[in-house]
Amino acid sequence: MKPLGPIPAGFTALDGELAIGGRKATDLAVEAGPTPLFVYSRAMLRSRVAALRAAMPARLGINYAIKANPYAPVLEFMAGLVDGFDVASAGELAKLGEVGIDPARVSFAGPGKRDEELESAISAGCTINLESEGEARRALAIAERLGVQPRLAIRVNPSFELRGSGMKMGGGAKQFGIDEERVPALAREIIAAGAEWRGLHIFTGSQALDAEAIIETQANVLALADRLAGEIGTILPKLNMGGGFGIPYFNGDTPLDIGAVGAALAERFAGLPERLSATELCIELGRYLVGEAGVYLTRVIDRKVSHGQTFLITDGGLHHQLAASGNFGTVVRRNYPLAIATRFDAAPEEEVNVVGCLCTPLDRLADQAYLPHADVGDLVAVFCAGAYGATASPAEFLGHGPARQILA
Amino acid sequence: MKPLGPIPAGFTALDGELAIGGRKATDLAVEAGPTPLFVYSRAMLRSRVAALRAAMPARLGINYAIKANPYAPVLEFMAGLVDGFDVASAGELAKLGEVGIDPARVSFAGPGKRDEELESAISAGCTINLESEGEARRALAIAERLGVQPRLAIRVNPSFELRGSGMKMGGGAKQFGIDEERVPALAREIIAAGAEWRGLHIFTGSQALDAEAIIETQANVLALADRLAGEIGTILPKLNMGGGFGIPYFNGDTPLDIGAVGAALAERFAGLPERLSATELCIELGRYLVGEAGVYLTRVIDRKVSHGQTFLITDGGLHHQLAASGNFGTVVRRNYPLAIATRFDAAPEEEVNVVGCLCTPLDRLADQAYLPHADVGDLVAVFCAGAYGATASPAEFLGHGPARQILA
Repeated sequence: MKPLGPIPAGFTALDGELAIGGRKATDLAVEAGPTPLFVYSRAMLRSRVAALRAAMPARLGINYAIKANPYAPVLEFMAGLVDGFDVASAGELAKLGEVGIDPARVSFAGPGKRDEELESAISAGCTINLESEGEARRALAIAERLGVQPRLAIRVNPSFELRGSGMKMGGGAKQFGIDEERVPALAREIIAAGAEWRGLHIFTGSQALDAEAIIETQANVLALADRLAGEIGTILPKLNMGGGFGIPYFNGDTPLDIGAVGAALAERFAGLPERLSATELCIELGRYLVGEAGVYLTRVIDRKVSHGQTFLITDGGLHHQLAASGNFGTVVRRNYPLAIATRFDAAPEEEVNVVGCLCTPLDRLADQAYLPHADVGDLVAVFCAGAYGATASPAEFLGHGPARQILA
Repeated sequence: MKPLGPIPAGFTALDGELAIGGRKATDLAVEAGPTPLFVYSRAMLRSRVAALRAAMPARLGINYAIKANPYAPVLEFMAGLVDGFDVASAGELAKLGEVGIDPARVSFAGPGKRDEELESAISAGCTINLESEGEARRALAIAERLGVQPRLAIRVNPSFELRGSGMKMGGGAKQFGIDEERVPALAREIIAAGAEWRGLHIFTGSQALDAEAIIETQANVLALADRLAGEIGTILPKLNMGGGFGIPYFNGDTPLDIGAVGAALAERFAGLPERLSATELCIELGRYLVGEAGVYLTRVIDRKVSHGQTFLITDGGLHHQLAASGNFGTVVRRNYPLAIATRFDAAPEEEVNVVGCLCTPLDRLADQAYLPHADVGDLVAVFCAGAYGATASPAEFLGHGPARQILA
């Protein structure tokens, strides 16, 4: 028997079934069309942002990094909740444009921006977080050719990392940003070239659950920004402090204490150095905002026994849930939170393996899980499916195609 | 410094550049439109199948498992080279239909076949490799409703595995196929129900480079098929012996000795037991047929130094080459074969990290590789990109979209 991850708070049973946004899983599956499907809960998105606002200093802007979930209705809904958006490609910027989000609210980071991408972002008035000196010069040349003043910030590769983060994006040699010591010269160069100077972006890592580590990193980020602003010799108009707020996926994980993070940040903000006193401050979050608000629903289409083990075979799989299958940046596979959605309040009674429909042994949704009895036709729910699900999975693999998505 | 995998035989330099099918990488990139792109070589597909035919007994049919690469022009080209096709979904069957391949040449395996999939495959006259008793009964009921005689085979979950295979698909509890001991009863049941009995499918694993392991497994497969045919009590019309033939990806890997495999198989075929003497015999291969024939070409769009390490940042990445990035079913990341395509005959002179354009540290194409000097605009070639590339990667991740593909 292997433990399942913890089901996020806020899900309840209705007539014995998992309810999302007050509606039963089977009703959602009927409404969306055939399974599998992703259901994203408006109520959970709203309450997550509200809780974060309540915990953080009022001065702190909250940006949504749409790489976590760029489903158009989610973007549209988030537009009313967050202050800004972060994109990682011109394709993502176009998705925001399609739902009418003002490019002035958007910043664009990413180590490999093509000329066409810089051109569309600069024309639109989006802020570019520059990742190298070469990119800075390409951006300036493109802006000159277009006859517009580009809005430029610098992404810093900090010398420190976010301790305990799932993905380190700072500390040592990285493809992201510009090493600290080269930042002042480049900032002066782009200011002298007539760009609109938009400040710094310092991203150190993601998916951390330890409040102390985030508090320490945020202190380091503020100190580094202050030092760099001094070396640049101008006020810092804006500082994107990065993200890093994680969510629990696995047995033993505990939620991040945002109260502690917010209290420490409020204290820092009360004593900010002179050079940061007028700086616009924000964090950018993806997974933390949308991850727990999403559930992946897939139907059991076969139940079989092999060598004494029971397999529930579903119509979903790693083509929609690569990370849950343990095949995306994972060293040791562990079970995500998962339940039999149609028997949500039933007691567990058997050990089963839940697998997807793909013809590959990689396609596992839960190994040796202790669950209520499920038959063909039952729905399985995989939780924490709101971030890095639909678009972070190989939807075309084996020809089954993408899953449906709904915002409920 | 970390070694790169071995570049497959058959690639040469033309005017200093990598040539594929006699044409230079830069010309192919111009023809296809913007990079990144996958180039699949007709000449290499043809010579690979020819070499295999020469090594294997004439009696052995060769099927192409299209999950490895379902690009329509590749399917069309393979139709003239192979005997049959294996699909893993109704979506894959539809792709074959779109290029005019007769469904009678196709068999369909996969642990999670939906009713609609069974219906379309049975209507089309495709052979279904049944994966469970439940699926068998669903298939019979659907055929009866449609008023057609279904063509049914049984996929066996063998008690042995393919030693040294990258993916084990036999031996112990599995979601694939039906445990050996339950096969005879089910075969008699479907024959009694009036289905067209199409024999057995025994797949034990994939990506093996050890000829001895494959020889041993094929002997086990033939012995198991003979024993099961005896217990079923009818002649065995067909036996799909599975695949398992691997290709070298990593430093130290050596090509599979197909001469040895073919010689051993010829010896077995010369002394087949009575019950297999009239059986149609085939193997099914995906990766082995198409993997080395494909190259992924991506352009360097930035070159930067961080903490003393040089990074080549390309316009490609894990959204097209998930396996090469080390994030798909891999425990320890190792470098695939990779070269600077535009400086293919130049001597290596520097250690660089080749990364993709995605804003995630997972997006690496080569770590600490020793390569010729490359600048912005140079093309990078990732080899062994013909199988499990374009469709086995999260193309929508971060909004850059899919790569182009051409058959050259």
